[in-house]
Amino acid sequence: MSIVVRNPPRADRAAVDALAGFGVATVHEAQDRTGLLDPALRPVWPGARAAGTAVTVSVPPGDNWMLHVAVEQCREGDLLVVAPTSPSQAGYFGELLATSLAARGVRGLVIDAGCRDVAELQGMGFPVWARHVCAYGTVKETLGDVNVPVVCGGQHVRPGDVVLADDDGAVVVPRPRAGAVAEAARARETKEARSRKRYESGELGLDVNAMRQRLADKGLVYVDHAEWAAAEES
Amino acid sequence: MSIVVRNPPRADRAAVDALAGFGVATVHEAQDRTGLLDPALRPVWPGARAAGTAVTVSVPPGDNWMLHVAVEQCREGDLLVVAPTSPSQAGYFGELLATSLAARGVRGLVIDAGCRDVAELQGMGFPVWARHVCAYGTVKETLGDVNVPVVCGGQHVRPGDVVLADDDGAVVVPRPRAGAVAEAARARETKEARSRKRYESGELGLDVNAMRQRLADKGLVYVDHAEWAAAEES
Amino acid sequence: MSIVVRNPPRADRAAVDALAGFGVATVHEAQDRTGLLDPALRPVWPGARAAGTAVTVSVPPGDNWMLHVAVEQCREGDLLVVAPTSPSQAGYFGELLATSLAARGVRGLVIDAGCRDVAELQGMGFPVWARHVCAYGTVKETLGDVNVPVVCGGQHVRPGDVVLADDDGAVVVPRPRAGAVAEAARARETKEARSRKRYESGELGLDVNAMRQRLADKGLVYVDHAEWAAAEES
Amino acid sequence: MSIVVRNPPRADRAAVDALAGFGVATVHEAQDRTGLLDPALRPVWPGARAAGTAVTVSVPPGDNWMLHVAVEQCREGDLLVVAPTSPSQAGYFGELLATSLAARGVRGLVIDAGCRDVAELQGMGFPVWARHVCAYGTVKETLGDVNVPVVCGGQHVRPGDVVLADDDGAVVVPRPRAGAVAEAARARETKEARSRKRYESGELGLDVNAMRQRLADKGLVYVDHAEWAAAEES
Amino acid sequence: MSIVVRNPPRADRAAVDALAGFGVATVHEAQDRTGLLDPALRPVWPGARAAGTAVTVSVPPGDNWMLHVAVEQCREGDLLVVAPTSPSQAGYFGELLATSLAARGVRGLVIDAGCRDVAELQGMGFPVWARHVCAYGTVKETLGDVNVPVVCGGQHVRPGDVVLADDDGAVVVPRPRAGAVAEAARARETKEARSRKRYESGELGLDVNAMRQRLADKGLVYVDHAEWAAAEES
Amino acid sequence: MSIVVRNPPRADRAAVDALAGFGVATVHEAQDRTGLLDPALRPVWPGARAAGTAVTVSVPPGDNWMLHVAVEQCREGDLLVVAPTSPSQAGYFGELLATSLAARGVRGLVIDAGCRDVAELQGMGFPVWARHVCAYGTVKETLGDVNVPVVCGGQHVRPGDVVLADDDGAVVVPRPRAGAVAEAARARETKEARSRKRYESGELGLDVNAMRQRLADKGLVYVDHAEWAAAEES
Repeated sequence: MSIVVRNPPRADRAAVDALAGFGVATVHEAQDRTGLLDPALRPVWPGARAAGTAVTVSVPPGDNWMLHVAVEQCREGDLLVVAPTSPSQAGYFGELLATSLAARGVRGLVIDAGCRDVAELQGMGFPVWARHVCAYGTVKETLGDVNVPVVCGGQHVRPGDVVLADDDGAVVVPRPRAGAVAEAARARETKEARSRKRYESGELGLDVNAMRQRLADKGLVYVDHAEWAAAEES
Repeated sequence: MSIVVRNPPRADRAAVDALAGFGVATVHEAQDRTGLLDPALRPVWPGARAAGTAVTVSVPPGDNWMLHVAVEQCREGDLLVVAPTSPSQAGYFGELLATSLAARGVRGLVIDAGCRDVAELQGMGFPVWARHVCAYGTVKETLGDVNVPVVCGGQHVRPGDVVLADDDGAVVVPRPRAGAVAEAARARETKEARSRKRYESGELGLDVNAMRQRLADKGLVYVDHAEWAAAEES
Repeated sequence: MSIVVRNPPRADRAAVDALAGFGVATVHEAQDRTGLLDPALRPVWPGARAAGTAVTVSVPPGDNWMLHVAVEQCREGDLLVVAPTSPSQAGYFGELLATSLAARGVRGLVIDAGCRDVAELQGMGFPVWARHVCAYGTVKETLGDVNVPVVCGGQHVRPGDVVLADDDGAVVVPRPRAGAVAEAARARETKEARSRKRYESGELGLDVNAMRQRLADKGLVYVDHAEWAAAEES
Repeated sequence: MSIVVRNPPRADRAAVDALAGFGVATVHEAQDRTGLLDPALRPVWPGARAAGTAVTVSVPPGDNWMLHVAVEQCREGDLLVVAPTSPSQAGYFGELLATSLAARGVRGLVIDAGCRDVAELQGMGFPVWARHVCAYGTVKETLGDVNVPVVCGGQHVRPGDVVLADDDGAVVVPRPRAGAVAEAARARETKEARSRKRYESGELGLDVNAMRQRLADKGLVYVDHAEWAAAEES
Repeated sequence: MSIVVRNPPRADRAAVDALAGFGVATVHEAQDRTGLLDPALRPVWPGARAAGTAVTVSVPPGDNWMLHVAVEQCREGDLLVVAPTSPSQAGYFGELLATSLAARGVRGLVIDAGCRDVAELQGMGFPVWARHVCAYGTVKETLGDVNVPVVCGGQHVRPGDVVLADDDGAVVVPRPRAGAVAEAARARETKEARSRKRYESGELGLDVNAMRQRLADKGLVYVDHAEWAAAEES
Repeated sequence: MSIVVRNPPRADRAAVDALAGFGVATVHEAQDRTGLLDPALRPVWPGARAAGTAVTVSVPPGDNWMLHVAVEQCREGDLLVVAPTSPSQAGYFGELLATSLAARGVRGLVIDAGCRDVAELQGMGFPVWARHVCAYGTVKETLGDVNVPVVCGGQHVRPGDVVLADDDGAVVVPRPRAGAVAEAARARETKEARSRKRYESGELGLDVNAMRQRLADKGLVYVDHAEWAAAEES
């Protein structure tokens, strides 16, 4: 049976907006290094950034019919997440679907398959993260599902989760954790800002993070090159 | 025996110029989803676009001697298509050969192998689609063929065929079909322009393409999230 | 035993500066097609260029602790070269470490693993060549070595060697050969400048390089298309 | 927080045993083409077959500490399912862990990472499906989780689900569906046995499956070679 | 338009039988290193060997409908060659289709996509070369073509050509050249048998092939290790 | 300049023989997880094992001329190690060269490129580890080097080093360390034999290795499934 689930709960908008201010690497760290999608999903044009609540689509390989179904389930602030049930590099998505999504206020697309019309998407400013850029078209023959949990880029994504993406890749934040993760990201960024200042002034990570003793305890040895070279030759 | 075929018939210039006005995805669709080269052949600099009549070169792995032979066979409006007889990531092509081709009015290069001097090529505005960017040099020891049919990026390309390439990849249009495909591309673009307007105004693909009945016939079911969640738990 | 070798001899600064004026492809050719790193190591932002003396780091997979140790061993004009002892796509390096390196006058990073904070690195103008862009974090649990010979991108790199990188990839020049290779690169570039002029004026590589006789000796045959087509059909 | 969940409910033993009698392809079809793990997970020795209830382990890249924790949670009839939180080709598993699992009656291992000691595992008859064969060792520094849902080979696997694997790959059957899927697999196999007899006797799939009319309706055209060749030449 | 071409001319049976006696490497060399399919197409079980006349099938990605159509076009001595119009790892082929082909005397299958039921195929002794082993099923919705030229594994294959495959991969011999290539293969094998005897008796390739002078002319230098080591250190 | 270094010192024969008794995984661990070649280098037939002293060959891509030169430098007990200066999947090596090496008592081949004649090699019992199986032939046009240090499979290999290979891959042991590594391997194996007995009797790695306290210190928490499920739902 193929199913479209209507009106799944979305993550809190304020939390989404807060998360949108951080980078993917920061958010990934802030939730204990979880949720990062396969880095093979890359932005199809450089400099793209997006954050939104996931509308999920499970699609057959080489068949984009369900994307049209999914558009209707999207609201302002959503981000479309598409996962094929078997790998496909076909171009499921292009300018026309982007136009339709943009008209509904959708923030972008993350797809574990192919995308086309790259130049047009860049022109529109519609951000897409995809595994492939490929002009090969899809058919419209077989159903799939909308707003059921999917595995996209190796991560379990549920409808309503927050998905955040930039030049570093894409990360999913589970809906119930969105607020807490935004808090943790802010704390991390504050701490990093302090470290950055110290690094800029020439302080070393060895000292900023008090690593010297632990390195010595693990057995790290310093030796001058001349001494090392002599030992190597003997 | 290695052979250079002189003066193969080229596709009609007017048809090439017409095709040059469309994107790769459109042309690929306009000829029934045929002729798309392996999407692993990417532009070496972003934003590149080119269309021309193919001068084909079959080269040994790691040996670019025949490219010098091929240059002489090129005319204004041609596009060089290079296929190694066995995979190679070597840099067959760089700034000097590009200078020579540009001097003859050649529109670009599609090569199922490596290319180098990326910065210089971008500076010259000479467009190249390649499987690899690789500075490793080639030798000049073994012959190949010019203007015989080749397989490039998994597609059969004959001399004189039209090759069109942009940010979405590259597509080959057989010489005899060039005019008809240009017509079909124009028709497709006209139709898409109409769809685009409807999408921009918020109409859905489900309605623009009258998909609802066929989806229902295939068995698509809509359910509210609350109902779905209750069923999942039981 | 994990070791940090202090003060290895660096390649002569004048030779490094001379090499910095050439492209990777030129330098690779100038040293007899040796030293090119695996072309899968790509610049994380386009247009990057760097040349410096290698400070080498051997790191465990998924563990970037030794990078902090290595920073202290870097001087103005160095370039950090990082090789994991087993493949890892983890993001060993980001904005904070770049800040620390930049503060010491380090020219860039070449890493046979992952990098993150791409947008920030581009903003800072800090050049990085990496096998992966990946936000996944690393741990700080296991030691490695600094300034011992490493294999990075399939090439043997010794501390103090010159590493040069641009849009075409990265190449290592052994320390003792730096001056001679710079000389050879200059000679090659002078020769290429002469060839370029001839190509621009429409001369062919066949004539510029006097290839016609050797091609004929190897058995290359020219035939007109009509004749060839007739033979194919029979 | 790292967690070990004790005593998750397992799929019904009778259903597991029933499923064990079918091939992966049959079971995958019987549950509507869902649940197939990435085919890049291959048996490390040919001819292996296994079916069991999943004990799941989420492990850090390059760190196999949690496998020792997981062994204790395994019972007779289980099958260990290991998923790294980031890709790793390291050899998490070898002869000693296999000895420990075999002593508890565990049926096999499916791991989205590396395995080593292939010859010894084959000698023991302990079946393993892995993404990589790799002798590189792992550390024991960082925690993970046991018996929480994981994504392994691109599929969501929950503790207690049935995992079935053979020369064609591996498939997961959700615990609540195990009985129904076994039924559907049996029905499919019965139907295929009938078809096989007809194929053996020389009947065609076109007739066994009554495809001729539908093919004609879609527009399939038959033409004799002579006629086709004449048309191609004109 | 989708087309099935009936009764294409087949290569001469005697030539096919003669070719069947040689290995893929020998035949590839005997026709001047042409015709080798992408080595990523591997036998799905070890030790398989096959030779036959090609019945070609062009199929959509993930759709095996046309295989049923193609079976009817096969005769005793044929070998099925399947090429998707866009990459697919789906399992187009399994035990039932193999049963049907075997009943018609078909020698094997070469497919640039996925295959399943590996254990059953090995049990039947039906040889298959495929890019992927994958249990994921295909649909039957979209037409393709039978007995038109296809590109399979990067080679142009025409119906009636000879295809030969073994543990080294697969090679296509154009129909008109089959007899001549068989002759050349025999000559090569005779020559190799002579060389083998000399190698077995301890003679060196340097002498068997009279390479020493040419190596010296190219500049090869021999040096004793002690001398070399001294030079390296200085 | 191309060079053949004669008579490099070989690792002590007794140490080689001792190492030959251990598996690759054991030796890799015994030398602190160093020296493992890229696991993409696989045995071309299963069950192969070999150990010998390295004769190294640096070859151009697609050119196997230097292999004939290298054969003459081989002695009984050696193992040939071949590294192309740029990636190549060509079949550098087949039955004839194997015959020549076998006649000299060479133990096997490790090549970071392609190999052919797999069935014949298996028939002869000549073991080969290669990155590719590929029938495509090589030329004999360009020189390389014999018995200079090379990078093969990402590891630095010097002539005379010990190379050991089995179903798990291949590992290099530096000549001066051969004896000490053999000792360490023996110690490791003795310890593992003790552990194996305890595992066989049902003892857990948690206890054999006294891990429980350290896991608790790191924060590992055990919870019963019912409790965990209740917490998840709330």
